[in-house]
Amino acid sequence: MMPLAADALLVQEVAPRDGFQIEPAWVPTEEKIRVIDACSRAGFSRIEVSSFVSPKAIPMLRDAEEVFARIARRPGTVYVALVPNLRGAERALAARADELNMVMSASETHNLANMRMTREASLAGFAAIMEAVAGAPVLVNASVATAFGCPFEGEQQADHVLEIASRYLALGVSGITLADTTGMANPRQVAALVRRTLELVPAERLTLHFHNTRGMGLANVLAAYDAGARRFDAALGGLGGCPFAPGATGNICSEDLVNMCAEMGIPTGLDLRALIAESRRLAAVLGHDLPGQVAKAGLNRDLHPKPDFVTQ
Amino acid sequence: MMPLAADALLVQEVAPRDGFQIEPAWVPTEEKIRVIDACSRAGFSRIEVSSFVSPKAIPMLRDAEEVFARIARRPGTVYVALVPNLRGAERALAARADELNMVMSASETHNLANMRMTREASLAGFAAIMEAVAGAPVLVNASVATAFGCPFEGEQQADHVLEIASRYLALGVSGITLADTTGMANPRQVAALVRRTLELVPAERLTLHFHNTRGMGLANVLAAYDAGARRFDAALGGLGGCPFAPGATGNICSEDLVNMCAEMGIPTGLDLRALIAESRRLAAVLGHDLPGQVAKAGLNRDLHPKPDFVTQ
Repeated sequence: MMPLAADALLVQEVAPRDGFQIEPAWVPTEEKIRVIDACSRAGFSRIEVSSFVSPKAIPMLRDAEEVFARIARRPGTVYVALVPNLRGAERALAARADELNMVMSASETHNLANMRMTREASLAGFAAIMEAVAGAPVLVNASVATAFGCPFEGEQQADHVLEIASRYLALGVSGITLADTTGMANPRQVAALVRRTLELVPAERLTLHFHNTRGMGLANVLAAYDAGARRFDAALGGLGGCPFAPGATGNICSEDLVNMCAEMGIPTGLDLRALIAESRRLAAVLGHDLPGQVAKAGLNRDLHPKPDFVTQ
Repeated sequence: MMPLAADALLVQEVAPRDGFQIEPAWVPTEEKIRVIDACSRAGFSRIEVSSFVSPKAIPMLRDAEEVFARIARRPGTVYVALVPNLRGAERALAARADELNMVMSASETHNLANMRMTREASLAGFAAIMEAVAGAPVLVNASVATAFGCPFEGEQQADHVLEIASRYLALGVSGITLADTTGMANPRQVAALVRRTLELVPAERLTLHFHNTRGMGLANVLAAYDAGARRFDAALGGLGGCPFAPGATGNICSEDLVNMCAEMGIPTGLDLRALIAESRRLAAVLGHDLPGQVAKAGLNRDLHPKPDFVTQ
């Protein structure tokens, strides 16, 4: 695990997985690799590359093996694979993923809808994965989806989310993610849950995953940061979305987050101009507008010329 | 001035002025009145109705007199008119505006570009307005545009912004607005400037006006709120925009802000469902998508039905 400067904020890029998986049109393998390589060059310490899920479940990511095989790996960057089950974990290991990310929902209803199994079945599967990878040179992260609310059940109790985190830790995972899967979190709730989670796990092992579905994405990041969190998922251009909120935005936007940090003096180690260039290129490749703002507005320091009639 | 519950956040609706003024197609007077009346019913304590500016400068608001004459005024709501000069102030008084809002930029270049005069000329005009309205039953607010950054000059020094606020107060204005006209503010800067401004003027006389141009709108609101600010401008649907950032969003979105407050337990006194309904209607009337998120995503508490295959 990379040591953190006390005030640094680590942005982990998830567009290649959480964004591309719900794109309406096929994103060519070539393009996926190009985006991931651009993210490596821009300095991301962690990139979620793809998902080793059934091609029937998520056809958009059916090229996970090829993508992993052909990306240019940058030393110091952790390349992550989402794995839904033991079969996925075996595929990810064969593809030389640096980290496996397992996902279960806090909400039983959401887990049944999303993973098609009970939470107890998910946890049993995670135990099998941990056993299978024991001794392998791979990190394992476990995510709590719908940690801040479920679109079917509503609010999730903090005690319940913390219990899941404890069970993850008991399995021996190296990291935990609290995910606001459908953008229901608010800053007060985030600050409270982060503070309590940091009693279980240190900041360098905790990731927050926010969506901007109701416009609070960056506000939630700051609330989590002020409460001590330091690692955040984000997607170039704010790619992604939520099947329950057509038209609403998806993941928080990487370049908008990095720009906020830059303006506030919070170090991220990322090349902001490279991110903006890649986000603009991505919008052109995908053929639709992306919700990210800074790629449209530009940086504060890129000043505009005075109008001609202003002579002073 | 309305007394504030200590933790209440007052949202002031500005779509009829700051939004409609840059719409590409004419918004019929009837529609303007309908939106303002809906905002009155939803409980806004303050609505910026229109601008008494030259119809040549802003043709979209050339019906300011008619709008003021025909809106249904709700007791307790303050109906505000933007006034660029003494002539505008006289028109606003004749139209029975409850409050005049005068605007000058912190940046000399922006004031020359936007108001076509120097800041000293603006301040002399403001003095003439204060003299003309002395004794009239009208409030006068003064706004500092580009208070957090100028698209031509860049950063504006806090000392300089505070000096302008002091000169406003010396003129006897009843309220001051710090406006992030082109969305350049960040939360750390906002917290610092709000704290210092509140040494000059109490919270019930200070308004913050943010744009979401770079995605930080609600994060800036929370930073200002935590620093003691309580009054915020916002626009239904996030209407508005910035001529320097085509494609970027405009004002922070009223219903997104009110939803954040509702989720956090911060009282606003507003009818959130009425705001969402009006925002959706407005998008249909204007014939284009609005950047607001909650009108698309719905409220957290509007749960989704379980998928059929989930039997539990």
